[in-house]
This record gives sequence, C-alpha cells and structure tokens, in this order.
Amino acid sequence: MSNFREQALHYHAHPVPGKISVELTKPAETVKDLALAYSPGVAEPVREIAADPAAAYQYTGKGNMVAVISNGTAILGLGNLGPLASKPVMEGKALLFKRFAGLDSIDIEVKHRTTEDFINTVANIADTFGGINLEDIKAPECFEIEKALIERCDIPVFHDDQHGTAIVTAAGMLNALEIQGKNLHDATIVCLGAGAAAVACMELLIKCGAQREHIYMLDRKGVIHTRRDDLNEYKKLFANNTDKRTLQDVIAEADVFVGVSGPDLLKPEELKLMADKPVVFACSNPDPEINPEVAHSTRQDLIMATGRSDYPNQVNNVLCFPFIFRGALDVRATAINDEMKIAAVEAIRSIAKEPVPEEVLRAADVKSLEFGPEYIIPKPMDPRLLPRIAKAVAHAAIESGVAQIELPENYMAHHKAQ
Amino acid sequence: MSNFREQALHYHAHPVPGKISVELTKPAETVKDLALAYSPGVAEPVREIAADPAAAYQYTGKGNMVAVISNGTAILGLGNLGPLASKPVMEGKALLFKRFAGLDSIDIEVKHRTTEDFINTVANIADTFGGINLEDIKAPECFEIEKALIERCDIPVFHDDQHGTAIVTAAGMLNALEIQGKNLHDATIVCLGAGAAAVACMELLIKCGAQREHIYMLDRKGVIHTRRDDLNEYKKLFANNTDKRTLQDVIAEADVFVGVSGPDLLKPEELKLMADKPVVFACSNPDPEINPEVAHSTRQDLIMATGRSDYPNQVNNVLCFPFIFRGALDVRATAINDEMKIAAVEAIRSIAKEPVPEEVLRAADVKSLEFGPEYIIPKPMDPRLLPRIAKAVAHAAIESGVAQIELPENYMAHHKAQ
Repeated sequence: MSNFREQALHYHAHPVPGKISVELTKPAETVKDLALAYSPGVAEPVREIAADPAAAYQYTGKGNMVAVISNGTAILGLGNLGPLASKPVMEGKALLFKRFAGLDSIDIEVKHRTTEDFINTVANIADTFGGINLEDIKAPECFEIEKALIERCDIPVFHDDQHGTAIVTAAGMLNALEIQGKNLHDATIVCLGAGAAAVACMELLIKCGAQREHIYMLDRKGVIHTRRDDLNEYKKLFANNTDKRTLQDVIAEADVFVGVSGPDLLKPEELKLMADKPVVFACSNPDPEINPEVAHSTRQDLIMATGRSDYPNQVNNVLCFPFIFRGALDVRATAINDEMKIAAVEAIRSIAKEPVPEEVLRAADVKSLEFGPEYIIPKPMDPRLLPRIAKAVAHAAIESGVAQIELPENYMAHHKAQ
Repeated sequence: MSNFREQALHYHAHPVPGKISVELTKPAETVKDLALAYSPGVAEPVREIAADPAAAYQYTGKGNMVAVISNGTAILGLGNLGPLASKPVMEGKALLFKRFAGLDSIDIEVKHRTTEDFINTVANIADTFGGINLEDIKAPECFEIEKALIERCDIPVFHDDQHGTAIVTAAGMLNALEIQGKNLHDATIVCLGAGAAAVACMELLIKCGAQREHIYMLDRKGVIHTRRDDLNEYKKLFANNTDKRTLQDVIAEADVFVGVSGPDLLKPEELKLMADKPVVFACSNPDPEINPEVAHSTRQDLIMATGRSDYPNQVNNVLCFPFIFRGALDVRATAINDEMKIAAVEAIRSIAKEPVPEEVLRAADVKSLEFGPEYIIPKPMDPRLLPRIAKAVAHAAIESGVAQIELPENYMAHHKAQ
C-alpha cells in the first residue's frame, strides 16, 4: 500500500470492519450447554445476584469489563466530530485494554443534549461494567462529568485524557528532575495549555510535591493570573498572583516546561531563557511545542519528552491506563483515588531505573536503554508494566480503603495480557 | 456435581466469571500495529466517518454489533429483580446471538427512574450498535419503550419477548392449523395472558390472517371486553364486544388456545370443550398451562406446543432472534418491520415442512422428524435456520424499503455462526 493513510484504513476495514469482537468463554454446543447458559439454568445466577449484588462478580463478566465511553467532543487532536466519528478511537482503546491488561473492554458512544444528560446516561448503564474509562471529552465539561460520575457510580470512573496523561507525565518528570539534580518542591513550572490534560498534570504534580504558586499556566490569552475575570473554576485554581503576562515573561529561569497545547509554540529563544538543566515535556501530538532536534541543539543540558514514539521519552498513556484499571478491578476498588494514582507514578518511575529486559530492547529496536536523559520513562512493550503497576495500584486501593476484596495470594497468575 | 442448580452456577463461574469476552480481530503485536490501531492511524477512519456516517459500517464493528438491553423488570419468570440481577440472562442472550448468527453482542443493564429516562438512555447510546434487542422489560412499559426507541433510533430496535415469541408462535400456529385442516381467518382464538408476549402474538396472528373479533384475550380478571373500564391502551385493542366473562365461557368451541400466563391454568375439562381438532400452545415456562401428557390423554385430536425442550414442538425464541437480526444487519435495515417479521414466519414454517438433515436428528437425539402433529416447528440446532431466515428477512427489508444496502452476491458466505 502506497501510504500510511491507506494502510490505516485497510487495517480498520479488513478482513472484518473494526478491531474487536465478542466471543464465548463457555461451551455452547449441546442442548445441555444451552440449558446452562440460558433458560432454565441462567435463573440460578440471577437469583444469587438478586440476593447479593456482589455475586455479579462471580457469575458474570462485570468484574473484568471496562467501558470506554466518549461523546466525541475532543477526538485526539481533531476536535469535536461527534460520538459516531469517535468510535474507531474508542474501539482502539478497548483493543489496548485487552492487549496490555487482558481486560474485556467495549466502546460506548454517547449522543446527548446537555452535560447532565450525558452524566445521567452513563450513570444509568454503569451496573453493566467493572469500570468506566472516559475518553476524548472536551474541557471544561469533562471535569464536571467525571466528578458527577464518581459520585453516582460505585465502580472506578477515570478520565484517561486527564489522569493517564498526568500519571505518565509525573513519573517522567520526577525521573527527569532527579537526573537533573532538582526536585519538584523547588521547581518553577510553566504549563502551556489549560485544558483537561494540563489541569490534571499540574494537580498531580502538586500532589507529588510541586508548589502551586510556582506554577504558571497559560491559555490562549496568556498567563492565568489573579486579575483575570474570564477564568472558569478549573483555571481559577491556577490563577497566579503575578505581573507576568506572556510565555516569554514566565519561561525565564523556569525549571520545567510542560506543553499540552499545539505545534511550535515554544521558540528556541524562549528555551534559551530557561534555568540551567531544564526539563521540557512537549506533548502536543503529532507536532510538539518544539522540535526535539531544534531543542537539543539549542540546549545541551536539556532533558526532553514528547508524545511521539519516534523520539526518546514518549509520554504515552498506554503505560498507565490498562494497568491502573487491572489493579483497581482485581481488588474491586470503588474508585481510582489519588493514592492509587501516585502508586502508579512510583511504579512507572521505578521500572525506568531498572535494567531493561532483552525483549523490550528488541521491540524498541535499540541496543541498550539505561536510566538517563534519553530514558526516563519505560517503553510501552515492557512486560513489567502489567504486574508491577497493577500490584502497586491494588495495594494502594487496599491501604486507602477503597478495595472490596483482598488480592489473591497467587496474584500474578491473574494477569493475562494477550 | 450433584444437581442442575450447582451445574448452572459452576458453568457461570468457571474458568472465568460470565459467558462472553471481548477479543481483538486485528494484529496488535508490533509498534506498527498499534500505530495503525490507535494514534496516529486511527485518525484516518475518524475523518472518514466524520465526513460520511455510513463509513462507520466500513471501519468499525457497529454493523455486526447487537446490544441486548434490559432494566431487569421482568426477568424470565422471576419478575422484577433489577438491572444487575438480569445480567446473566443478557450475557446469555449475547452468547446466543454469537453462537447462532455470528453476531457480536454485548449486554447493557439500565438503571433508571422513569420510563422516559430509560428511553433516553438507550437512544443516547444507540450510535454504538448496529441493532438493539430489548429484553425482559415488563408490560405495559415495554410497548411505550419500544415505540419511542423505534422513532428515535435509525437502527433496528426489537423487543424479543414480544416479537420473537410472536414470530415463532405464528409459524407453529399456521403449520398446526394447516395440519388440522383449519385456517387463521376462521379460527376462534383464546389467549390466556395479556402481557407483552400475548399482545404481540395476537397482533402478529391478525397480520397473518386472524380476525380481531374472533380473539378472546383474558387477563387476571377474566375476559377483556368492551364494558371493562380498567384496561390500558394495549389491552383495549383486544376488548371484545361479548357477554362472555370466564375462560370456561370462551374456550367452548374455540379452535386455538394460546397460553402465556402461568402453570396449570387450563383444566382438562376446559380442553374438552374446545372445537374438533384444537390447537393448544401452552407456553408458560417451565410449567405449561396444561401438562402435555394430560392434554393428549384428554384430546387425541389435539396439536400441542409448549415452551419446553423436553416435549415436541418447542416455541423457542432462539429460532428467530439471531437470524432476524442477522438479516436486518446484513442489509443495514433501519428497522425490523412487519414485512420482515412475516418473512421470518414463512421461512420458519417452510423449514419445518422439509426433510430434516441428519445432524439435526442427532442433536435432537431422535430417529426421525416428519412434518406433522409432533413436528410443526424446526429444532433450534437446525443449520438451515440461519441462511434461510436471514435471507428471507433481508429480502423483505429490501422490498419494503428499509434496507440501506443490497445483499452481496455471495450472501451465504457472510454467515459465520460459531
């Protein structure tokens, strides 16, 4: 095939449309099989669940099922194209849940009038699933939606565009600062972008030690400061009591730049103004806020990450979301709380510091990977991610009191990625 | 295992909880695979669907996906046990869709406050699917729900408890009357029960030739007649201008009895009152309105059907729902209309009249099956059901103008039951 576009369309269309199917996990060949699977045998688990709702985890697929739910208002970098057009992305996410964590996952695209209508629709179908992964929902509605659904549902609800990005960013950031001999508490941070990912990244960095008053967040109108009267309640949390107004004003002597905005918005001359040993996460995809080659030739003391797989240090949500759900569902957590998110951050950090298995080098097509400026975040194909992150998250759920069951003794055996 | 109950629970719990899983239909091993399946490749089908919604059928699983949706208000014969408890039944139905028609199918359990809330929830998520099978929703709400969803959705919405039952009943009834030398137009019909299945069965029999004024429907208070003031709008359609008040009154000289009520409600002395060569469909499950042995010893000129697999002539919805959806989805029908239902009735009827394949005899564990009083309806394991019903339904959809595409020339090849 002549080009990537045609390959992508062919991949989605052949040999069958789409990327996921539903299959049987039980025999259904004989009349006896069908009498167990459906009427009259099915009445027995129905009665058990009616008597004790927790029995749903024993007799149905609920406990291994994650819904990937979107309204298509912020599809990748493509914008608001509506629920139906988001379906390939949501099916793709379902594919990743299965591939990386053995979780059954199904996409649900939601058409709605109001935000309340969306919330109500998702809450109404939540009994079906073990967890809900919200995806590609635009800010600021995504904040209200996630908050309301967490309140209404007794299963984990997790907006991956916010928290998956935040967890991988925080893990990479902490490692980068460690290599640079710096720490989050003292770091001055510039965050270009004020959407879902930006707000979640900064909130999680604060939970990991950053100081809110050392953060300068910028939206399309410039620095978010206390004298602006055009801020929604989420941006307001980052209003800085400062006279600085532009990127150039705040980037001077900054230790950290996090870009979740758009291509080429950080200029080499601005990068030059940053403090010694800066850390730049230019996560706009596919075109980062500054081209990595340009950045490195501008500053030799730089550590840089992007959202791209063809440069070192890719901030990729797939390092987190399959495994955080795996851990949460394996202890039937009622939520994914901050303790679990921070446990995921620490697990990801620690994997990057350890010797890399041969198979990871082969998959990444490199000779060696060693913790340092060019390797602060593990690779997506690393088989250690599943057991390590899931276990850390499950333990954090137990310790923070949101788990409903203990981990089985032979916990590792549970994890069957495809 | 000591008994059927334990076997049914064991079947549902081991080796994994539940009966269905989600699997990948595309390779997802390499970095390249993932770049096609998710970002950046997935942007291509997104753009195609945004430009033309019909492209969803080409690039996603929508066109082969049926949602089985319930609120758990009328679970089997068990009553209103709520959405979560209905999950094993809905997963079972999903299993049957896959097993018999190769359709991917996922269960959705809906919690709701009002009927309007249920309707709105289902309509909001309908983009996700190629068709919606409503299940185990109590009457009379099920009528309003189905009507509203048919109006709001551009995909087939089908309440199987109504129409699946009605189609199989009509097919068996027409064959039974033919054997008895009678016809629907002249038949006097007693319908014991006035719920979803009863109303749908009688409406379809009327469409197949029965006369409304020859039907006597009975609810818990007796015959539904024009002087009653306690009738909902669905029962009102069957209010008969008659002085008859009891089952005994109306059963005298009746040609047909259809029971969708409860066990042992038709007494042998009532059966004796029926006209020559009567037809009795006693579909209450697991215990029919009259025991078949008792019935046959009371009337040697009887043709009888039940809902049970251990007697001849089982009225089993699985003879219809997988195949009617298969046919509807294969031509992207926007609805399942009367023409398609009647096409299914005729296809089922005709299969029962033809020589039975060896494998069907083996599966049913009988030496022979020949069209006659003990064989008026095909067996569920009959491999002819899929191609014959699906094709008949698809053609009816095309001819009645609700199909969006033609059937492919090599249509049979499409059908991959498991």
